[in-house]
Formats: sequence, C-alpha cells, structure tokens
Amino acid sequence: MDQLAQEGITRRIVASIKAQIHDGAYGPGDRLPSTRALAAEWGVSRTTVTAAYGQLIAEGYLETHQGARAIVAAGIRDPAPQAPAAAAAPPRLSAFGRRILDLPAGTGEEPGRIADFRYGDLSAADFPALAWRRAIGAASLRRSGRLRYGEPQGASALRLALQGYLWRARGIRCGPDQIVVVNGSQQGLDLCARLLLDPGDRFVIENPGYALARRALLAAGGEAVPTPVDGEGMRVDALPDARLAYVTPSHQFPLGSVLSASRRRALLAWAARTGATVIEDDYDGEYRYDIAPIPPLQTLGPEQVIYVGTVSKTLSPTLRLGYLVVPEAFCRPFAEAKRLTDRHTSLPEQEALADLLASGAYERHVRTTRRRNGERRAALLAALAADCAGAVTVAGAEAGLHLVAWLDRVAAGREGAVIAAARAAGVGTYPIAPLYDPAGPRPPMAGLVLGYAGLDAGAIRRGVQVLGQMLAGFPAP
Amino acid sequence: MDQLAQEGITRRIVASIKAQIHDGAYGPGDRLPSTRALAAEWGVSRTTVTAAYGQLIAEGYLETHQGARAIVAAGIRDPAPQAPAAAAAPPRLSAFGRRILDLPAGTGEEPGRIADFRYGDLSAADFPALAWRRAIGAASLRRSGRLRYGEPQGASALRLALQGYLWRARGIRCGPDQIVVVNGSQQGLDLCARLLLDPGDRFVIENPGYALARRALLAAGGEAVPTPVDGEGMRVDALPDARLAYVTPSHQFPLGSVLSASRRRALLAWAARTGATVIEDDYDGEYRYDIAPIPPLQTLGPEQVIYVGTVSKTLSPTLRLGYLVVPEAFCRPFAEAKRLTDRHTSLPEQEALADLLASGAYERHVRTTRRRNGERRAALLAALAADCAGAVTVAGAEAGLHLVAWLDRVAAGREGAVIAAARAAGVGTYPIAPLYDPAGPRPPMAGLVLGYAGLDAGAIRRGVQVLGQMLAGFPAP
Repeated sequence: MDQLAQEGITRRIVASIKAQIHDGAYGPGDRLPSTRALAAEWGVSRTTVTAAYGQLIAEGYLETHQGARAIVAAGIRDPAPQAPAAAAAPPRLSAFGRRILDLPAGTGEEPGRIADFRYGDLSAADFPALAWRRAIGAASLRRSGRLRYGEPQGASALRLALQGYLWRARGIRCGPDQIVVVNGSQQGLDLCARLLLDPGDRFVIENPGYALARRALLAAGGEAVPTPVDGEGMRVDALPDARLAYVTPSHQFPLGSVLSASRRRALLAWAARTGATVIEDDYDGEYRYDIAPIPPLQTLGPEQVIYVGTVSKTLSPTLRLGYLVVPEAFCRPFAEAKRLTDRHTSLPEQEALADLLASGAYERHVRTTRRRNGERRAALLAALAADCAGAVTVAGAEAGLHLVAWLDRVAAGREGAVIAAARAAGVGTYPIAPLYDPAGPRPPMAGLVLGYAGLDAGAIRRGVQVLGQMLAGFPAP
Repeated sequence: MDQLAQEGITRRIVASIKAQIHDGAYGPGDRLPSTRALAAEWGVSRTTVTAAYGQLIAEGYLETHQGARAIVAAGIRDPAPQAPAAAAAPPRLSAFGRRILDLPAGTGEEPGRIADFRYGDLSAADFPALAWRRAIGAASLRRSGRLRYGEPQGASALRLALQGYLWRARGIRCGPDQIVVVNGSQQGLDLCARLLLDPGDRFVIENPGYALARRALLAAGGEAVPTPVDGEGMRVDALPDARLAYVTPSHQFPLGSVLSASRRRALLAWAARTGATVIEDDYDGEYRYDIAPIPPLQTLGPEQVIYVGTVSKTLSPTLRLGYLVVPEAFCRPFAEAKRLTDRHTSLPEQEALADLLASGAYERHVRTTRRRNGERRAALLAALAADCAGAVTVAGAEAGLHLVAWLDRVAAGREGAVIAAARAAGVGTYPIAPLYDPAGPRPPMAGLVLGYAGLDAGAIRRGVQVLGQMLAGFPAP
C-alpha cells in the first residue's frame, strides 16, 4: 500500500472512532479495541492503527497509560441519550404490558459492605467451576456435523438424567416426556400462567408468598386469592373455585412451614374436584437440616400437580436452568408454548447439566453445598442467639437457605426504618412486607428475610453483631 | 460396618435399582452410574455397590461387557407410560393455550443422508469452539464473591459491546439501555407479541413469511393481515390500521428481496401516522454477497422500529442468544417483561459473547463464516445451473444462508410429492407452502427453500445431483 492510501485509511479510522465517541458508543474511560483487533477488523496493518490512535491521542480524544490499551479521554462528553425525553411518548401497550407496569418493580440496591443477607444469592466459592467448565467443554466437543435447534421440551439426555435424579432425590416417578426444561423456575411459572390463566381467572396463592410468582400470575391477568399461611403451611379449609393454586409445600416461602399431610390431601382433593391445577414450587427442596425429607405433592397427585424444580439454589442463579414435571395431558401445550417462547433452553448448558447428573457429580455437589449451607445456618442461628437475644424470634430455619427474623420489639410500620438503619451500618437485610398481599393483614411486628447462602461464617457473625447493636439502639416505638 | 448391616444396604440398593427399572427411570440399554458414583450417592463402599450390581446381573436385570459400566438388560420391559391414555383428560387451558394447539406443529424429520438443505442449521465446523470455551471459562473465573441474578435487560458489559458492534456493523446508534438481551430472536418476537398485541388486534406480516413469527403473533391473539411480497419486498401501498408490522427488510424471508428505499419511507410514515410499531427482523444481516449493505430500517425510524438481531446464524442456533433494540419509550416494559418471563438470559453465555465482541474475535469470526458461506452459496448456484438447468429458477440468493428454488415444471399441488421423492433419494428439502398464508394465493409452481450453511461443498454438489436426477424423472403433471 502506498503512503497516500495508508494516510487515507488512517483518516477514516480516526473519523470512525471520533464518530463513535460523539455518538456515545464509547464513553469516557472506555477501553478501545487492541491495535491487533482493530487492524484485523479494518484489514490493515497494526502500524496504521497505531498511527490512528496516535492522532486521536494528539487531538485529546484518547489517553494511554504505560503501555495499557488506549481509553477514551475523561474530558470527552458523556454519551448523549439517544432520544430527547420529550420525544418519548407513552407507548401503546397490550393489557399485559400495562399490567406489568402497574406491578411493583424489583429493587436493585447494592450489597451491604459488611454482610448482605439477600435471599437468592449463592457463594461463588460453592460453584463447581472446574466440573462445569469441563462439562461445557465436553458438550461442545461432542457436537459434530450440524448445529441445529433442539427439541423445545429439552435435550433428551437431560430429560432422561432428570428422570433418574427426580426419582432418586425426590421420589418422583415420571416419563421423560413429562419433563420440560426451562430457563429457571421463573420461566416455568410464566409458562403456567400463560397456559392456565385467562384475564379475570382466580388463582390461589400463599400469603405471604413468593413475589415473582404472584407477579407472573397477575401479569397474565389472574386475580389473586391470597390465602393465609400458618405452622402447617397454607390453609386449605376455605379454598374458592380457582384455576390454579401456587404453593411451596416443602418449605413455605418465606415463613418456612411444611404443608401437613392432611392439608396435602385436602388440597389435591380440591384440585381434583374443581379441575384446578396445583403448581408445586420446590425451590429449595435439596436443603433440609433437622427434618426428614417429605415427598413432593406431585407424588400424591401426578394428574393435578405441576412440579417446578431449579438449579438456581444448587449450582447458580446465573445459569437459568430449571425443569417442570407436568401431567401427561399438559405435555404438548407446554412443549408448543416453550417453542414459541424461545425455541428451547441453551443446549450446551443443558448438556453440561446432563453430564453432571449422569456422572453423579451433581448429587455429590449437592451434598457438599448442603453441608456448607448447614454450617452457615448454624453460624447464623448461633449469632442471632448470642447478639440479638430477646430482640428476634426466628422462623423457618429447618430447611432452605433463608430464615425469617421477627423483630419482636419493632412495629411492622417501622420495618423500612430498621432496614435503612442496618444498611447505613453496612448490613443488607430484606423486608417481609412486600411478600404479604398489600390488602390483607400481616403480623404486628417487623420481619426480616435473611438469606445466608452467599456469605461465609465470619461475615454472618459480623453482620449479626452489627444488627444486634443497631437493634439495641433502635428507638422504642 | 458388620456383615449383616452391609447385606441390608446391598439389598436396599438392589431393590432401589429394580424399582427404577420397573418404573422406567432406566430403560433397556441405559448405563447405570459408575460404582464410584453410586457408592458416593449411598455413602457406602464400592464393594457394597459391586455386590449389588453382581446380584442384579445374576438376576438378569443388568448386563456388563468387558469392564464397561453395567447397562440395563435388553430383555427388561420398556419404560411404561406413566399414566394410561384414558386418564389423560383434555386439560383446561387458557385461550393462549388453546390457540397454540390449533397452530400447525413443526416437523421433526431426520436429516437426509446424502445432503440436507434444512434452513437454520449451521456447520459445527464453523463454530469457534476454542474461542467460545475460553470465553466461557474466563467468565466463570472472573466471577467472585456472590452468584446473583443479573439485570433483566442483559449484562451491561454485553449491552455496551453490542452498542459498539451495532454501530460498526449496521450503523445503528442507540444507548445501551435500549438494548434487551433475549434468548434468540424467537424470545424477542414473543416479547413483542405479548407487549404489543391484545386478542383481536391486527398485525401486518409478509406473505410468504417467517412461520414462527406468524405463530408467535397469532398465539398472542393477533389477527394476521398477510401482505404480498414482490421484488422490492413487502408491498406497503394498502396497509390497514394495525398494531404492528413484522418485516425482514434486509433479505425478505423466504423470497430474498430487499425492501426498497421508497417502501421503507412509506412503511415508517404509515407507522408514525397510525401509531403502529415495526418489528425489523434482521435475522441474517451479516451475510451479503453481491449487494451493498443496506442500513436497517431502525436507523431511519428509531421511534417506530424494534430491531431484532441474533447470533443463531453467526455462532450457533443452540446457544439461544439474541438482542432487541427498542425505542426509548419501550425500555421499561421490555425489561419488566423479560424479568417476569425468565429473569434474564444465561449470564455466562452473555459474558462470553461480550468477550468475543470486545476483543474483535466475533467480527473476525463473522468475516470467516461469511467467506465460507459465500463458497457454499457459489457451489450451490453452480450445481443448480449444471444439474437442474431448465428445471429450476433461483430467487433470493444475493444474501443470507438460503435460496428459493422454484420448480418451473412442477405444479404447486405436487410440492409435497417432490419433497417426499427427494427424501426417499436421501436429500432433505423444505417446502415453501407452509410459509404462505393458507387463505391467500401463491405462485402456481412448487418451490423449495434450500438452506446451505450446514453443508460442505461436496455434499451440496451430491445433493443437487440427486435432486436433478429426481426432477428429470419426475412425472409431468
């Protein structure tokens, strides 16, 4: 290439990067591609790219420090919002779209710096990173010939492996056709909502209960029938006609009670009588400490129950892998709905999970995390007994990865103030208020949902100590 | 453990495996877990498990060959269906559920053994397996501290990387908040259907057009307004009032025309006038051969257009990764809908794609696959000219990964017979009939959609040769 042509290309690269900076594609502090990558992208030599970067540094668009990659200079203007706010007219949305905007949005707060008891987080140290990487690698090596869309209900290797696992771990007997692999339990709940509820249909739901299940069912246009929970799980003595009931029978979320045997029978009898479907969310069925394992509802009423399982509490919530066990009659509608929703769940991840299940590595891993979470739980209970004695009553610690701490001396109306004070002291805790139906009654004292699976024992102890000091100094009502 | 206790455990393991075989959790030929895995699962020695396996082999439940793992004996009965067919009453479904059962189901035929021209398949040899495994590994190593749910609209690293990519590759200028990461374009289309359509709302769609887009919009209760396609793309001269229009302007699916500049302007003017939203499916925008790149519709009407992109044609359809660019006003509804649908797309896969984009590896890879698919396309065009001369008219080969072969001497009504004859001869081809609205007109001759991205040049040539011979011998109408 002659000198003139090279200068022309350098100028074009310079102009292109300036335009990207002006358009906000690169903001102040953003790293630019390496000279090697940009040279490959433009099909030019690295010398040409180095010249272009040199020009941009000279003009003040870029900065570079000690051989590191060039970054956009701090003085360059921030990315401009694409459309002025005035132009953003309220969009015309479907009834579904309008309903979801009316629902309360999730909170996105930063974790507390001393300890954060956010429920749903796991410790990254517990993730079987090596085994997972190997299984993902093996899945991609095995693939030969063609890359093609998979079956909507899930890879057959995974459904077969889950069939065996569900039998061994939970006593569920089902055919692989009854298993639908989904992107975590949330997608399973959303598919249930879409396939079972029409706008105006009633659904029974535990009160307090899991907020994102409630929201998915409300988004489908369902009308909630919030149903109280006591020490034996959801009360089933006065269930109305409804299309479905959502329950967490193994470990009620958030209060932790186990649905009693007589209520299980009554719930299934109600479903059989009224034609309702029971959604059994077994969100943390792998974690039990002081209680014997209880067979899922599904084993008592396979025609009435859709069982929802997930690896979000055993492997990672970041993976988005879950599974449904549906009655025979629901196999086709769920498969077709999954196909139209997103064709199928990521195949490499499905195959990696199938490998871990088939080799026994998954069950070994579950035993390990059960032991570790048992230790975390013991540390939390000990710390609460030592540092919050008299201020806190614990509920629901027999199973799962969280417990509820009722603050006996703090009125319900001050729950938000306690949480703000804890957060100011560096400890993240989470309110029980949003888990109650806003129209119904709730206990008179404040309550905290404390998840412990993301913390080590030291952080748990430090966090509870701060909490205890804060509660001791918290002004009486 | 004393002998008696050990025998008791052996008996329980034997009984458990027998029950799993009888219940169909293990079928004939299935491998059992290794003795090591099962020993870990039961918390016993491998000797105990070996004794249990020995007993099951002796009783004829299991077989073993040359030190390989035990498998279930061939003579053991097949897994029984879980519920007798009589018990499976028709389920009570929502209107959505009833609509999807009325839609035509996808076909799941085996690939032709000589060549299979299924559209959507990619060659596994094109996948950047090493780079992808490295990026997945790097993502899992980077993760420290906590595993927690991500942002519903996608990881910010990926949205920033996509912002730059969309600018460089497609000239799209948008803020990262306008990008929503989805599980492939199908989830993007389904979210559009749910958020924009109420039952009874009309939607404009190309005829012929992409079947799974049509089905997702019909499943939401929309009423299709099939709109004819000619050499300039979809006709826009008589669009009715509608809530949305679905178009493939860069390379009409399946006919391959490019939406002309004047029609682009007219379509956007219609959308602005009526308040409709245009869904631009840029499903194969990376593949262009003889034509200059055409900027997406989105660049002309960012307030009217939802842009849909995917990596299903560049990396793999098995990954389920795609993205939307939505108008500012739609950011919140799409993020909330994605949260309720499945919280977010798999984070490790999002981060791996972000890495490939940021390093320039993705764009290098796209250049490679564009060259390889250009070679496949040239092989297919040359083979059709040589072996099907006079029998076939090719359409839509200027871009993308497929073309349409019109069979000039075969009537439309015999399309199915031609495809069956080709399949019998070992070549998989796919009909154009299902892509036309069943109520509307279609061309009088049979047509085949031939995808070539999953085949090597040799298979393409062999497949076309078989096709040519078959067509030459196909009885005249």
